[in-house]
Amino acid sequence: MEEELRSLLQDLESFKLSTSDRPDLVDQMKQRVVRIGDLAKPGAGKRSKVKDMSAEVVDSNPYSRLMALQRMGIVENYEKIRDFSVAIVGIGGVGSVAAEMLTRCGIGRLLLYDYDTVELANMNRLFFRPDQVGMTKTDAAVQTLSDINPDVVLESYSLNITTVKGFEIFVESLKEKPGKSGVDLILSCVDNYEARMVVNQACNELGQTWMESGVSEDAVSGHIQLLVPGETACFACAPPLVVASGVDERTLKREGVCAASLPTTMGVVAGLLVQNTLKYLLKFGQVSPYLGYNSLKDYFPTMQMRPNPQCSNSACVERQKEYIQSKPARDAAAKAKMEADASAKSEGPVHLDNEWNISVVDDNEVDVPNSSNTSDRLPDGLVHELPSADKYTQPLVAEEASPIADDLEDLQRQLDALNAS
Amino acid sequence: MEEELRSLLQDLESFKLSTSDRPDLVDQMKQRVVRIGDLAKPGAGKRSKVKDMSAEVVDSNPYSRLMALQRMGIVENYEKIRDFSVAIVGIGGVGSVAAEMLTRCGIGRLLLYDYDTVELANMNRLFFRPDQVGMTKTDAAVQTLSDINPDVVLESYSLNITTVKGFEIFVESLKEKPGKSGVDLILSCVDNYEARMVVNQACNELGQTWMESGVSEDAVSGHIQLLVPGETACFACAPPLVVASGVDERTLKREGVCAASLPTTMGVVAGLLVQNTLKYLLKFGQVSPYLGYNSLKDYFPTMQMRPNPQCSNSACVERQKEYIQSKPARDAAAKAKMEADASAKSEGPVHLDNEWNISVVDDNEVDVPNSSNTSDRLPDGLVHELPSADKYTQPLVAEEASPIADDLEDLQRQLDALNAS
Repeated sequence: MEEELRSLLQDLESFKLSTSDRPDLVDQMKQRVVRIGDLAKPGAGKRSKVKDMSAEVVDSNPYSRLMALQRMGIVENYEKIRDFSVAIVGIGGVGSVAAEMLTRCGIGRLLLYDYDTVELANMNRLFFRPDQVGMTKTDAAVQTLSDINPDVVLESYSLNITTVKGFEIFVESLKEKPGKSGVDLILSCVDNYEARMVVNQACNELGQTWMESGVSEDAVSGHIQLLVPGETACFACAPPLVVASGVDERTLKREGVCAASLPTTMGVVAGLLVQNTLKYLLKFGQVSPYLGYNSLKDYFPTMQMRPNPQCSNSACVERQKEYIQSKPARDAAAKAKMEADASAKSEGPVHLDNEWNISVVDDNEVDVPNSSNTSDRLPDGLVHELPSADKYTQPLVAEEASPIADDLEDLQRQLDALNAS
Repeated sequence: MEEELRSLLQDLESFKLSTSDRPDLVDQMKQRVVRIGDLAKPGAGKRSKVKDMSAEVVDSNPYSRLMALQRMGIVENYEKIRDFSVAIVGIGGVGSVAAEMLTRCGIGRLLLYDYDTVELANMNRLFFRPDQVGMTKTDAAVQTLSDINPDVVLESYSLNITTVKGFEIFVESLKEKPGKSGVDLILSCVDNYEARMVVNQACNELGQTWMESGVSEDAVSGHIQLLVPGETACFACAPPLVVASGVDERTLKREGVCAASLPTTMGVVAGLLVQNTLKYLLKFGQVSPYLGYNSLKDYFPTMQMRPNPQCSNSACVERQKEYIQSKPARDAAAKAKMEADASAKSEGPVHLDNEWNISVVDDNEVDVPNSSNTSDRLPDGLVHELPSADKYTQPLVAEEASPIADDLEDLQRQLDALNAS
């Protein structure tokens, strides 16, 4: 279109030179062409970058509702989100929505990996638009995300991490380099076992914490899982809960056959995954080690898995040894922190000043929860929507009803029982 | 821009008439203008309408992954979704995402209600884009949704349902009229008590089933709830679980003060809401009467609430009477259905033919679940990702750990206990 506009301007110019009739009208037409060019620019409605996140409550502040998490006593320092880098592997039904959520939350840097292109068949899930059909998923994602939030640094890699070359570039891109931080977390949003094993390998080698996600082939269940090399089970430690037992997954994906998918299930899994990510990065709430979602029954099992000392992945076994060796140092650090917290408490709250100078109502009428307080207090006039899980004298739901597999044997026994039934 | 293009064409036309110089060049310029207009059309990358939903697995089929729900044995007849009309009240952080999910699922007709405009302060939630700032939320939603799926009939109402005039138009728009069906379900995605009471009033008057949703002011919990006038508690039957006790909510929304919100929590709530909607409309899985989401602990309470015979809402009390009076007819219908199902079973499956002629592998190798079968069977080589909740000998989580308030007194007692604590 730009080319057409440029040509039109040239035509008008040559017309003006070749005739003495109505030069004013020609000038008027030229101005119209320039205005059309301005209106057609893709950035016409874009917002400009924001230097600092402000908590000011005005309609023009894209961060006001996020910074309010501090005033509500949920997050101690929301703006810290700008310091974090998150890598998302697989920009499909879950990964694309996870990327959009993190972008809207104002994450510092987002690294996106996928080798696929957008198809109309993807339109039953959120994020991609029909006009992006044919683009690589990473290009389409960068196009959409940079419009939504220009403050986020986006790096996109259109490559297949399961190839030797792709794996090399993938691992290099995750490393800390001069003038460039490493990543704080990797989110695996791929749709096959092979790619998960590759992410697992890279994370075990780098000692990189990551979160795994998945949605079942029948579209009605899914899960998220936190994996900390050496500390929790890695993806090779235990047979995965989604298993293509015996049959090569690729035969399921051959021409004429496709898995079902729903925007609902994928949206819920992406939401739970990024919520867990925010809790992990910004240190609030409880980070879930594993959370399942059975949508037919609205049932959400949880569990924990310790690493397998006989894991077939040698990098995992090395990380396990390091984790055990570092136990005395961890214990000492934990003890020091507890003591520091205790002495800080006796000296009164550390963050007594109200940095953002906000109060819900007059200070006389209500206590503004100080920003280091992540307790259950709410402004005057509000009560919590849901009863806190603490208030039940019974054990926590999840722990009650879900299999807590404290060691591998337990888990194996449970899986065997399930497979046998 | 269209206006500018139209004016430019008029200028060129009048120029052509007023001068005899180079009419060919003027025509050439006019052609350029038309081409620019075509290129600038928002529909440049739009997909065309699809007459019938096909299960064919090709990249160009936007419904292949949804129709696969039939082959997977989850949904009996997915295409029926085109017969349904859903109204969404409140096109904010939850309502807009719910609208997008239903649009991508290919819902027949979507009615959207909101009186607000898009602001940059909304950009921390999914759906709206910075270039839509200043548009009404309903206009912006129609713009985005019609691009995503032109098969969905969109009706938008930019009005405030809490005004007398707005309420009138709202109720009229929901009614069945000659040549126009009523709505099958209303989703309430509003952010205040007053608007919820108005939806409640309309639904009680019309005997209209609806689902309520909400997210807490601190952004970290939410809920969905099914309301069937006469059969379940209405919104006035019981004190709502989110209460602005004593304090007028509007004082909380005044200048300089805003609630926190997160794209994660709102995305999860929208996903759970639309999943419940799909289960309700397409008759699969269990429709949840109430489902809560506490994101700090990944805790999901459920409960059921019977209506209050002393409800202050007279329309609710009338619906309750009708429901009790219709009990013999309901029992007879249920009995007839059970008998029909039993005799159908003894005659073998009804849907023996494979309408879409799809098989996962050769028919010799695997049983294709017939489409009326919503059991737990999966194609060969796959096992279920999550253990089925049935497999636990313990009672269902939700029922075990959550307050099942079978009558109002129980619920009131629980709420009193929570408020007192």
